[in-house]
Amino acid sequence: RIDGDRLWASLMEMAKIGATAKGGNCRLALTDLDREGRDLFVRWAEEAGCTVTVDRMGNIFARRPGTDPDARPVGAGSHLDTQPTGGKFDGVYGVLAALEVVRTLNDHDVTTRAPVEISVWTNEEGSRFPPAMIGSGVYAGVFDLDHGLSRADPDGKTIGEELKRIGYAGPEEMGSRDFGAFFEVHIEQGPILEAEEKTIGVVQGAQGQRWYEITLTGQEAHAGPTPMARRRDALVGASRIVGEVNRIGHANQPYACATVGMMQVHPNSRNTIPGRVFFTVDFRHPDDAILSKMDGELRAFAAKAAEEAGLEIELKEIWYSPPVAFAEPCVAAVQEAAAAMGFKNMPIVSGAGHDACYISRVAPTGMIFVPCEDGISHNEVENATPQDLAAGCNVLLHAMLARANA
Amino acid sequence: RIDGDRLWASLMEMAKIGATAKGGNCRLALTDLDREGRDLFVRWAEEAGCTVTVDRMGNIFARRPGTDPDARPVGAGSHLDTQPTGGKFDGVYGVLAALEVVRTLNDHDVTTRAPVEISVWTNEEGSRFPPAMIGSGVYAGVFDLDHGLSRADPDGKTIGEELKRIGYAGPEEMGSRDFGAFFEVHIEQGPILEAEEKTIGVVQGAQGQRWYEITLTGQEAHAGPTPMARRRDALVGASRIVGEVNRIGHANQPYACATVGMMQVHPNSRNTIPGRVFFTVDFRHPDDAILSKMDGELRAFAAKAAEEAGLEIELKEIWYSPPVAFAEPCVAAVQEAAAAMGFKNMPIVSGAGHDACYISRVAPTGMIFVPCEDGISHNEVENATPQDLAAGCNVLLHAMLARANA
Ligand SMILES: NC(=O)NCCC(=O)O
Ligand SMILES: NC(=O)NCCC(=O)O
Repeated sequence: RIDGDRLWASLMEMAKIGATAKGGNCRLALTDLDREGRDLFVRWAEEAGCTVTVDRMGNIFARRPGTDPDARPVGAGSHLDTQPTGGKFDGVYGVLAALEVVRTLNDHDVTTRAPVEISVWTNEEGSRFPPAMIGSGVYAGVFDLDHGLSRADPDGKTIGEELKRIGYAGPEEMGSRDFGAFFEVHIEQGPILEAEEKTIGVVQGAQGQRWYEITLTGQEAHAGPTPMARRRDALVGASRIVGEVNRIGHANQPYACATVGMMQVHPNSRNTIPGRVFFTVDFRHPDDAILSKMDGELRAFAAKAAEEAGLEIELKEIWYSPPVAFAEPCVAAVQEAAAAMGFKNMPIVSGAGHDACYISRVAPTGMIFVPCEDGISHNEVENATPQDLAAGCNVLLHAMLARANA
Repeated sequence: RIDGDRLWASLMEMAKIGATAKGGNCRLALTDLDREGRDLFVRWAEEAGCTVTVDRMGNIFARRPGTDPDARPVGAGSHLDTQPTGGKFDGVYGVLAALEVVRTLNDHDVTTRAPVEISVWTNEEGSRFPPAMIGSGVYAGVFDLDHGLSRADPDGKTIGEELKRIGYAGPEEMGSRDFGAFFEVHIEQGPILEAEEKTIGVVQGAQGQRWYEITLTGQEAHAGPTPMARRRDALVGASRIVGEVNRIGHANQPYACATVGMMQVHPNSRNTIPGRVFFTVDFRHPDDAILSKMDGELRAFAAKAAEEAGLEIELKEIWYSPPVAFAEPCVAAVQEAAAAMGFKNMPIVSGAGHDACYISRVAPTGMIFVPCEDGISHNEVENATPQDLAAGCNVLLHAMLARANA
C-alpha cells in the first residue's frame, strides 16, 4: 500500500509553486513557474534513485530499473502545467502518484521484472500553447517535432524557444521509451463518480475533440454617429455564433459538449464598434459521427451568420483528436486492482483529453479516475479527498505491478 | 481666410506622434505619446505668441490677448488624445484649426476686442479612462475634481498620477477661463454630410448617452467533462445580452445607437468554461425619453438572461450625458459664417459626445462639422479632404471673429 500522507504532502508542496489567491495554481507551460515545478520533480525523482532523461519536447522520464534487461518499461505519469486559474490536482496528481509508486517500491525493497518509469509530459493543458497534449502527441508521432516546437503562445513565443530558456530542451529523440504498458491516474474533472458514489473510475477511453479558431472581421467605426443599418459589428456576429455553439451542445445530448472558452475583441474600446473578434470553439463527443455532424452544423451557421452581418470569416479547425479506446489488458489490470482492493468502481469514458490518449497510439494504455468535488476542474477551487487520491494511487501501484511482472 | 496648407501640414506633423501601421494614430490619454503631442502643441502656441496655462485636470489654454481688458475670451479647441486605433483628425483637427485661427490673425495683424483662446481638453475619448470628455466635464462642474483625478485605466493608474508623471498637472483652478463663447470644429464622424453633399454641418446639439459596465459571474469548469446541463457559462449569457443590445438599437430607429465595444473573458482559456465576463454598453439617442426606454429594456433583459443562465449580474450605469442643445447666438454665428463664405451647409445633430457638450453648460457654445470619408471614424483609415478641413477652419475663424468683436 502506498503512503497516502506522503502523497498528499508532495501534492501540497508542489501546489506552492504558482499558488493563486483562491487556493488554486497558475503554472502555465514553460513559464518560470513550470520550470520550478519541473526542478522539484526532478530532485524528488533523483532522491528516489531514478535516472532522469529529457527529450527534445521537454518531456521528462524518471526510470527505476527492473531485473530483466530486455523487459519494456511500464510507464505512468501525467503533466505539471496548469490552466491560468487551475487547480492543485489536474495532472500533478498523475505525476506525483507515479512518484509515490516508486517511493513505495523503494520502501518495501520490491523489485520488478520490467523497469518502472515516471513521465512528465510538456504542455498538456493547451492553454498557453494550443492544442492540448502536445508533448505526448509529438512523442506518439501524432504531430511532428517541428510542428510541436513551433507552436506559439499569444505573444509569439514558441515552445522551442521557451524550452531552451527554461533549460528543458533535452537530447532524447522522440518516442524513445518503448513502453510495455502505460497508466495515468487523474481526477475525473466531471460529476459522475461523485454522483454514483464510486471511488474508482475504470476508464474505457476518451471522447473525441475538435478545436476551432474563428476570426470575424467587420469595420471599426464610432459607436455614436454610425447608424445601426451601416454597421459591420464583429462582436454582434461572434455573439450569434457563441449562441449557436451552445445550442449545438444542447441539441446533441447525451454526451455532447460545446464551449467558447476564449474571445478577444479588437480594438476593445467602449465607444468603437468592434472591427475584429477572435474566438475559439471546443467540441466533444464520444461518437465520431456525431462529432462530425456538430462540425457541419457549426460551419453552416457561422458562414450564414457572417454573411448576414456583412463580416468576413476565417474558420480553422486547429485540432482533431478522435475518440480513443484504451487497451483491454490495461483496462482489465485497473479493474482487477480496484476490485481486489475493495474499492467501489465503475466503467467511465473520459470527457477530457489526457496524455494517455496519445500514448495509447504507441503502447497499451489505461487510465484510473478518482472523484473530484462537485465535478469541478479548471478552477482554483478544484478539490479531491486524500482518501480518494490514495485509493487511485494504490490502484495505480497494483495495475503497474501486474503489468511489470507479467 | 486661413492657410489651408499650413493647417494640413500641422495635422500631418502631429499625426507622426503615435502613428500606426494602417495610417492612423494611437495616442491614448496621458501616455508618453500624449505628452509628446501636448508638448508640440505648446511649442506651436508659444511660437504664435500665446500665453499657455494648464489647469489641475491637465486642460491646456493658450491665449492671444484682446484689446478690451474686460472682455471675456472667445474659446475654441478640442482634444489631442485618440482611440487605440484612431484617426488623424478626431479632436486634433479642432485644436489645430483653433491654432490656425490664431496664426491667421497674427499674419494679418488682426486685433480682436476679446481675447482668443485655444483649449486642449484632457481624455476626451474615454477609451483609456472612462467615461469620455472628463477634462471638459470637470472644467464645467459636471464631475468634481477628485472624481476626475481618481478615474483609473484598466491597470489601475489614475488620471491624477499620470498627469503628474507626464508633467501636465497644472496649477489653474477648474472653470477659470470664463468664456464669452466657445466653438469646436470637428469631423462629423458619421455619413450624413457626405450623403447630403454639404461642406459644413451647423451643429444644433448632441444626442444623449448612457454608458454601462456589466459583469456576469458563473462558474469556471472544464470544457470536456462538464455536462451542458450543469454549466453556468458567463460568455453564453453575455452573448445573449450583446444580441439584445443590438436589437434595442434597431428597434428604436430612427436615431438610436447601441454598441458593446469592450469585452473581457475570464480566464480566457480554450478548454475552460468562462467563469466571468466583463463588458460595456453604449446607448445613444437624441430624445431623452427614448434613451430612458432603452435603459429599461436593457435592465429587464439582462436580469432575465442572467437568471435563466444561473449567473450573477452586476450592472452599473457609469455615465449619463443628457441630450445637449447649443446656444442660439453661437449656432447663428456658425450658420452665418458658412452662408457668407458660400459653403453648402445644413443643420445637424452630433452623434458623438464632444468637449463642447460640457462647455455648453458654462458658456454659450457652438460646433461646426465637416464631412469625413465614408462617415468612418474611430478607425485608422479615418480621412477628410484638405478642402473641407480648410472650409471648417474658415467658418471657425469668422464665427469666432463675430463673437470676439460683438
Ligand atoms: N485533463 C485535462 O484537463 N486536459 C486538457 C485537455 C482537454 O481540454 O481535454
Ligand atoms: N468625438 C468623439 O469621438 N468623442 C468620444 C466620445 C463619444 O464616444 O461620443
